[in-house]
Amino acid sequence: MREQPFHPPDLPIINDKVYHLNLSPGELAPDIIIVGDPHRVTFIARNFLRGIDVNKEHRGLRTVTGYTDWGQRVSITTSGMGTPSLEIVINEIVALHEIDFQSMERKEEFPTLNVIRVGTSGGLQKDTELGTLVITEYAVGLDNTGLFYDAPPPDERCVKLEGVVKDALEGVISENSRFKGRISPYASKAHPDVVRALTESAEELGVNFKRGVTVSNSGFFANQGRSVSRIPPTVPDIDVRLSRTDTGIEGLRFENMEMEASFLLHFLYPLGHRAGVVCPTIDKRPEEKFLVNYQEKVKEASRVALNALRRLREWT
Amino acid sequence: MREQPFHPPDLPIINDKVYHLNLSPGELAPDIIIVGDPHRVTFIARNFLRGIDVNKEHRGLRTVTGYTDWGQRVSITTSGMGTPSLEIVINEIVALHEIDFQSMERKEEFPTLNVIRVGTSGGLQKDTELGTLVITEYAVGLDNTGLFYDAPPPDERCVKLEGVVKDALEGVISENSRFKGRISPYASKAHPDVVRALTESAEELGVNFKRGVTVSNSGFFANQGRSVSRIPPTVPDIDVRLSRTDTGIEGLRFENMEMEASFLLHFLYPLGHRAGVVCPTIDKRPEEKFLVNYQEKVKEASRVALNALRRLREWT
Repeated sequence: MREQPFHPPDLPIINDKVYHLNLSPGELAPDIIIVGDPHRVTFIARNFLRGIDVNKEHRGLRTVTGYTDWGQRVSITTSGMGTPSLEIVINEIVALHEIDFQSMERKEEFPTLNVIRVGTSGGLQKDTELGTLVITEYAVGLDNTGLFYDAPPPDERCVKLEGVVKDALEGVISENSRFKGRISPYASKAHPDVVRALTESAEELGVNFKRGVTVSNSGFFANQGRSVSRIPPTVPDIDVRLSRTDTGIEGLRFENMEMEASFLLHFLYPLGHRAGVVCPTIDKRPEEKFLVNYQEKVKEASRVALNALRRLREWT
Repeated sequence: MREQPFHPPDLPIINDKVYHLNLSPGELAPDIIIVGDPHRVTFIARNFLRGIDVNKEHRGLRTVTGYTDWGQRVSITTSGMGTPSLEIVINEIVALHEIDFQSMERKEEFPTLNVIRVGTSGGLQKDTELGTLVITEYAVGLDNTGLFYDAPPPDERCVKLEGVVKDALEGVISENSRFKGRISPYASKAHPDVVRALTESAEELGVNFKRGVTVSNSGFFANQGRSVSRIPPTVPDIDVRLSRTDTGIEGLRFENMEMEASFLLHFLYPLGHRAGVVCPTIDKRPEEKFLVNYQEKVKEASRVALNALRRLREWT
């Protein structure tokens, strides 16, 4: 790693603000909901926050900071779509708390962050009803953003999941494919406190939920089995294949697919920050169903996530 | 590939509009400038377009369609940051032209698209002056979005570049790394007509430019050699390593790094559409310089790109 103090090309800061989020230290609370779509930031804030003191937008990323009904200061911010965009945002979120922007050195003390992604996802299992909230226990990244961060696997289940998914994909990639053997999944783990907090919140609120393994893709179309271009997909019907794959771990199934969970968990777990993911399934691939009016489900997931943030702060 | 007609979960369309861009067929011209930041869409349109008939924003993605001074209808739209976000946008751009939204089948005839990315990038070479426009001849993807689209390599140089970059990275990844051997670059090629059109435009306008190989990363921090988190990077000082790597092809150097070129070219080349990339270097890693006021450089690159679109339409 490069020496401290960090230099502007390593961590670009313009007028005391991080480059992409355009926020100063203090504008972001350590309890954070992160969503893909900037309009969802506004939607959640309007429904659940009061006393808003930050409301900013830059490069398509919006951040709102305010207070819950129970007086907890919470930020809602945007990841954009996909792990590369999320990588930018989450590095800046951590830097805003861990790095002193005057000395450009890491602070000796900083708060533990609680970060919950509220997203939308495609359901993989026939018996999971459309609209069910999925709480992520493990994520498997079919993106490769995480491969550039050399954190150890959090546990043996991660090692197992990587192998299972690698085998499942290779089993359907043609021998003649240009990319045979070149897709390398990485598995990551939600912080157990966050899984517990989300589970207790969903139970308390009487919301229909499941826990399982989330697959994170590096795209939405061929990467998730949607073949509408004229280019053959490397992994044909990847969604069908994953839905039929056994994780090899009792009680764990591949439950849903989205585009950000893998890196969020891979990055925050080794840092000792607490991260988790809750996504309604709005698209059920096996039955070709798509839930168009999913705003109520996003609201439900947000309520569950905010209640989980309350628990996590109490447990600190 | 799945059978036509395509179904809503394959290509979600809501009220005759594609799901993420929120555009109907006809709202997007076949001549397109694509940028990462939605505010850059507005900036370029304000400077160069008139008679604007589309100006829409959805999910942090903005699109403006209008006319150049010489009467060419052009769209300027957003990719978001990183190849997964771009994968969504460019699939929808192609679907808007190739697929009939009534029958949900591919049209028998559709226009050839001309798509030019105007981005910002980090310069890799000491003798490339900060602010120089780089016109991409080849891109090497260190993301993996393209690995899911099984297009053949456009030429032998692509095969060579993949090997050179793979060796360069593996040479610095520790034997003990969790991800040793698991990063698989893919190379893609800008359409020669676009390279020529951009080159002639830059020459005509007297703009300082270079041509070379662009490296596309799946993140901005560790993925590009910015190590500010507490997690060791898998490829230490990746930027330094790439700047010193010989492409093995005469007249071609690794000139710059950004986050979208690889997939844009990999996707559009085999479809017969014409794509290219022009990015000023706003950040010179070897000297730790960062160009804060780069709007004039983006304007210059946009002027070059729009002039290139004029040439491309004349050559059709």
